[in-house]
Amino acid sequence: MEAPEPPMRRPAVPAADALIGVRRPLLSHGFVVLVDYMGDDAAVVQAARVSYGAGTRTVRDDRGLIRYLLRHGHTTPFEMVELKFLIRLPIYIARQWIRHRTASVNEYSARYSVVPDEYELPAPGEVHRQSARNRQGRGEPLDLAVGESFRADVDRISQEAYQAYQRALSQGVARETARMLLPVSFYTQWYWKVNLHNLFHFLSLRLDP
Amino acid sequence: MEAPEPPMRRPAVPAADALIGVRRPLLSHGFVVLVDYMGDDAAVVQAARVSYGAGTRTVRDDRGLIRYLLRHGHTTPFEMVELKFLIRLPIYIARQWIRHRTASVNEYSARYSVVPDEYELPAPGEVHRQSARNRQGRGEPLDLAVGESFRADVDRISQEAYQAYQRALSQGVARETARMLLPVSFYTQWYWKVNLHNLFHFLSLRLDP
Amino acid sequence: MEAPEPPMRRPAVPAADALIGVRRPLLSHGFVVLVDYMGDDAAVVQAARVSYGAGTRTVRDDRGLIRYLLRHGHTTPFEMVELKFLIRLPIYIARQWIRHRTASVNEYSARYSVVPDEYELPAPGEVHRQSARNRQGRGEPLDLAVGESFRADVDRISQEAYQAYQRALSQGVARETARMLLPVSFYTQWYWKVNLHNLFHFLSLRLDP
Amino acid sequence: MEAPEPPMRRPAVPAADALIGVRRPLLSHGFVVLVDYMGDDAAVVQAARVSYGAGTRTVRDDRGLIRYLLRHGHTTPFEMVELKFLIRLPIYIARQWIRHRTASVNEYSARYSVVPDEYELPAPGEVHRQSARNRQGRGEPLDLAVGESFRADVDRISQEAYQAYQRALSQGVARETARMLLPVSFYTQWYWKVNLHNLFHFLSLRLDP
Repeated sequence: MEAPEPPMRRPAVPAADALIGVRRPLLSHGFVVLVDYMGDDAAVVQAARVSYGAGTRTVRDDRGLIRYLLRHGHTTPFEMVELKFLIRLPIYIARQWIRHRTASVNEYSARYSVVPDEYELPAPGEVHRQSARNRQGRGEPLDLAVGESFRADVDRISQEAYQAYQRALSQGVARETARMLLPVSFYTQWYWKVNLHNLFHFLSLRLDP
Repeated sequence: MEAPEPPMRRPAVPAADALIGVRRPLLSHGFVVLVDYMGDDAAVVQAARVSYGAGTRTVRDDRGLIRYLLRHGHTTPFEMVELKFLIRLPIYIARQWIRHRTASVNEYSARYSVVPDEYELPAPGEVHRQSARNRQGRGEPLDLAVGESFRADVDRISQEAYQAYQRALSQGVARETARMLLPVSFYTQWYWKVNLHNLFHFLSLRLDP
Repeated sequence: MEAPEPPMRRPAVPAADALIGVRRPLLSHGFVVLVDYMGDDAAVVQAARVSYGAGTRTVRDDRGLIRYLLRHGHTTPFEMVELKFLIRLPIYIARQWIRHRTASVNEYSARYSVVPDEYELPAPGEVHRQSARNRQGRGEPLDLAVGESFRADVDRISQEAYQAYQRALSQGVARETARMLLPVSFYTQWYWKVNLHNLFHFLSLRLDP
Repeated sequence: MEAPEPPMRRPAVPAADALIGVRRPLLSHGFVVLVDYMGDDAAVVQAARVSYGAGTRTVRDDRGLIRYLLRHGHTTPFEMVELKFLIRLPIYIARQWIRHRTASVNEYSARYSVVPDEYELPAPGEVHRQSARNRQGRGEPLDLAVGESFRADVDRISQEAYQAYQRALSQGVARETARMLLPVSFYTQWYWKVNLHNLFHFLSLRLDP
């Protein structure tokens, strides 16, 4: 049988190693940071060759084979690569993100722990109009005055909600009950581990304009 | 080969038919209602017998076989039964519920549609103390005065947030942006379709005191 | 909130009801038969509308909406429809089929039950040459003489293997051990339950020439 | 918020590093070898602490926390660890193994590649009787004479089948057709990548006597 002799040490990717632990800031208080990974280009190629046989060996180099797999929807070899991130993000984004069911997730629990006083505040210039043609999207930016008024409302509501949340906790209300006061502008945090095939799928859906 | 002759019509369960479309109210504004189902006891039994063979036929009746399967963790036959619910529930509960990845879900979208003015309001007598021994749970009820004050805070914050939400929409702010004002006390709604094995697992985790 | 009032009875599809229990023969001894189903066009449309909102109601009829969903890759509403089949097929096909992980399966067990004497025999005219350009596929039909010789080999090997299998069973060898004699030309059988989205995906991969 | 500062390099487990590339023989021609891994004890602990909060930090050390998680069925933190194996195994075992749907698999393809002449041959002393009390299992060993006769049958059938397979290939029959001659005693090979939670579940089912 095709007897691939697997190497005696696990593969490493210097470009990924350089990213580990480096926070990339997002929005007001959020970030994404790579925490761990598994697999490299060769892991994809090995998996493809065990499935697609010796013939794939001679005709193409690794780069060409990977492009071939992507182009033809041979997605299973990409499952051999895994990425794990720590992500801090507002609840209203987390609610959409979690709909992708093909990842492993451990989220900060507002039942176990006190939610910190961090909420998303949009810049006044980034408050957009409802799109006229895309019912689920945004159109052009609104007047700065509208943006400022909206931002002020988010700020005020979030602060009042957090004060009420703290008051409830100080009066002994259970954390799992008190949290119902908080707007979805508040931040949560999770470990999110996903294989490369599912990450590609996630990105192709979420980067769609 | 074992040649089970499948019947010429799909199985029906009168007890389930009687539940379809009947809303069961939950919390302030929520409900659960069975919308559709597939499979019956015989579907579980057939699946078990195709897997576990002719020998299972003689020794046990259907009821006994189903109990045997459950007791021994032979869970795949229970995947042959499917249930679909329409559920209205507060966002803070939806956030935990959705962590179970083995269901099909279509949720009301606050990007496409305006969120209605419905939020959870706990009864003053049902506001509980943080549990002393279970870090993620509730203990005894608090004084009624604390419950009333908490309920008043939830009511006030939710109303102010909803007014700001409506103002933002009236000024043309995109729905996907305006929603960040709303507390997790507000309601959402989804179709939730799950097989019986996964429903049992969900219930065993969620009914755990 | 959008308050869809679900109907008081589960949806039925007359065209599907007419297919239930009707075996469609495949290969030498195989078949596919629809055993049960759940959901109809309206189930897809309802799910889409709860997600995509009231706006989808006015602009499109059901047929148009379903086409729109398919075209734009909005696949989750198709998960609301479920189909269950009983399928008899040779092991060498079952081995590829089972690689699709998104179905519920209960397969005939050769550990519990005796494998019946049924194996696939290709018609002499349907034995094809290895494809010159597709390393995993077939090319043109071979000479009838080659087809006849191949068919005779399959027949002879399968019969000898089955005789040895029966001899082993008669001498008391455990079924789970004796089965190792049987070629992958032999038939197995399973219940296969899958939602419509995953069925479409399965078909798009398997019908690819 | 709990702000775990993830380390700047990915975790390594010396005990796992020492196993990478070391084949562990199984049956006549099979083996299991660890090819890659991701995560360590700390990865499980971090994930648990982000979910279960600061309180878990003081009361327990890592070892105690991991035992606590296992005992209480808090399984998601174990999904943070991933293992990848290369496994060679007979088809009749592969058929059961693949029923576990929660892994990533790339299998040697008998459509792309020629199946090598390797099949399982049981030792005469290891041919067991059908169990009297467990319909899917084995009982006591049979007489050596029965074991020898069974082994001889497996050997003869497998050899004849392989000769016919080679003849078919030499006459130009497509690999995907010719393979139907081969018994399930023949070997296949795959990469199998699974997270630790699913590996535990797999083992608990498969090690059950």
